[in-house]
Amino acid sequence: MFISRTLGALAVIAFAQIAIADPLPSWNDTDTRTRIIAFVEDVSDPASGNFVPAADRIAVFDNDGTLWGEQPAYFQLIFALDRLREMAAADPSIITSTTVQAAVDGDMNTLLAGGEKALIEIVNITHSGLPVDEFQNIVRRWLSEARHPETGLPYDQMTYQPMVELLRYLRDEGFTTYIVSGGGVHFMRAFTEKAYGIPTRQIIGSLGETTYDVIDGVPTVTKADGIAFIDDKDTKPVAIDRTIGQRPIFAAGNSDGDFAMVQWVTAGDGPRFGMIVHHTDGVREFAYDRDSHIGKLEKGLDEGPDMGWLIVDMAKDWARVYTGQR
Amino acid sequence: MFISRTLGALAVIAFAQIAIADPLPSWNDTDTRTRIIAFVEDVSDPASGNFVPAADRIAVFDNDGTLWGEQPAYFQLIFALDRLREMAAADPSIITSTTVQAAVDGDMNTLLAGGEKALIEIVNITHSGLPVDEFQNIVRRWLSEARHPETGLPYDQMTYQPMVELLRYLRDEGFTTYIVSGGGVHFMRAFTEKAYGIPTRQIIGSLGETTYDVIDGVPTVTKADGIAFIDDKDTKPVAIDRTIGQRPIFAAGNSDGDFAMVQWVTAGDGPRFGMIVHHTDGVREFAYDRDSHIGKLEKGLDEGPDMGWLIVDMAKDWARVYTGQR
Repeated sequence: MFISRTLGALAVIAFAQIAIADPLPSWNDTDTRTRIIAFVEDVSDPASGNFVPAADRIAVFDNDGTLWGEQPAYFQLIFALDRLREMAAADPSIITSTTVQAAVDGDMNTLLAGGEKALIEIVNITHSGLPVDEFQNIVRRWLSEARHPETGLPYDQMTYQPMVELLRYLRDEGFTTYIVSGGGVHFMRAFTEKAYGIPTRQIIGSLGETTYDVIDGVPTVTKADGIAFIDDKDTKPVAIDRTIGQRPIFAAGNSDGDFAMVQWVTAGDGPRFGMIVHHTDGVREFAYDRDSHIGKLEKGLDEGPDMGWLIVDMAKDWARVYTGQR
Repeated sequence: MFISRTLGALAVIAFAQIAIADPLPSWNDTDTRTRIIAFVEDVSDPASGNFVPAADRIAVFDNDGTLWGEQPAYFQLIFALDRLREMAAADPSIITSTTVQAAVDGDMNTLLAGGEKALIEIVNITHSGLPVDEFQNIVRRWLSEARHPETGLPYDQMTYQPMVELLRYLRDEGFTTYIVSGGGVHFMRAFTEKAYGIPTRQIIGSLGETTYDVIDGVPTVTKADGIAFIDDKDTKPVAIDRTIGQRPIFAAGNSDGDFAMVQWVTAGDGPRFGMIVHHTDGVREFAYDRDSHIGKLEKGLDEGPDMGWLIVDMAKDWARVYTGQR
């Protein structure tokens, strides 16, 4: 009897903790938060008319500007330039063009004036010629040493805490979470499992060329020159179809590069959720949208709400921004 | 007391059933079967020095000739020719070259003499120009109607029952099973979940080009002309790295097209398993290896055993061949 009463009391306490636990503590108590929770509870409740089986509860997230920062430049570009400078210091012979010289000098105007061709030249030098695992060790070392110029935080501490909580909440409710990003898969996979709890197989991104060779008797997958696939705009639905092979029911992005993905996801049958993170917080983060070179957001603001998309107002909806908030 | 005794008896019965249940009933009691079970039990036993955490228990399987038949021609090619004839009957104007005419006439010598270029021409006509889901409905209709010329079975009943059991056994022991095939992903995904219990996201294969467009207001992923990626030989490790992002510990194939994949998988640290299905059974299936146009197996036989690979002797090791055995 004593044991039964004690167990009963424990059960009540455990239940109360479950009932009280807030899945999204870094989200303010706004309509945004209410809409997210209402959707998730609805589709994961077997008694609901909108119930979606767990196998179909697939959620896709852009990375740059949606799950972590992207200002003043994509963090992978900052990595590439840091690595280029390190490589040039060790071996100046890698400076074979004015583009590379500009990149080494930090002359961003010249570099960006070179367009995609210039960026691919930098990526080829900094992201190829070594085995995938060695490259990822270099990324991890950079993440442990480099600091963001404005926040002073390690870049992998500049993940958005509300979004990290949303990812975990979705998984707790039976969703499978994916990243679908313009960033390189090998770069992202160096930190995404630790930062977001997403395994490598659920990271979809742009692809550098790779080769398979037996090098000194060791079978090796090596990063090579060239881009095999750019995962942006209309190719995001293409990449999801190629890799996952079914249409997700939840998509989150922040820029017009995510428009096609969110459009495709929310156009499917049954309950759907589209989310755009709007960078409205010039104090705690950066405020930008229609006129930004990075993360330009125009179509999502103009057409998203009519399609039922949720526009997250970072300044209003987020109680906290970075995971590594000081 | 009565209840407790009854429950005890039920528990004993249940335990006995678990202990007796044979995970591989279609495998003969040979060394092959013993080696498979010993490996799986070893890596999934937390008390073993060779224990591998479930997250790393990844197994990859070729499809054609490993999980289902591939004679007298790849089943996807038979599908393409059947569909081409159907299309040509409805609209003869699709016959725009001697290659297409030869394919419609069943003149395989002329078709195969055209090499890869001829095959791509046939694939472009039969595999493009329609949404992915419509294409997959066509594949499913074909699977329900078409019959293999020698066995008279539907093609999706020509899966190898011992391999279907092996896939299930591995999953029961915490493995994640993938297909890594030269076949097209969209073609395979029309039947692989039902046939093998493998979800679409774990099907890796060759990729036709696809486009994303809004057609009459409907966001659609459409199969287009051209091949984006051929998943064969050295590109199998490349595809695994791209999609899964980690090296599996178990690989099974049947031809030299799988050599690189099995080589890469078995060269990793820790316990590894490489398997080659050797088509030795000219009575129940087909006997072929070194001199075959389809599924040529030479390097695997010559070099595999020295690398510890298991060569499965279909005639000796399999009690049953096809799932749809009459």
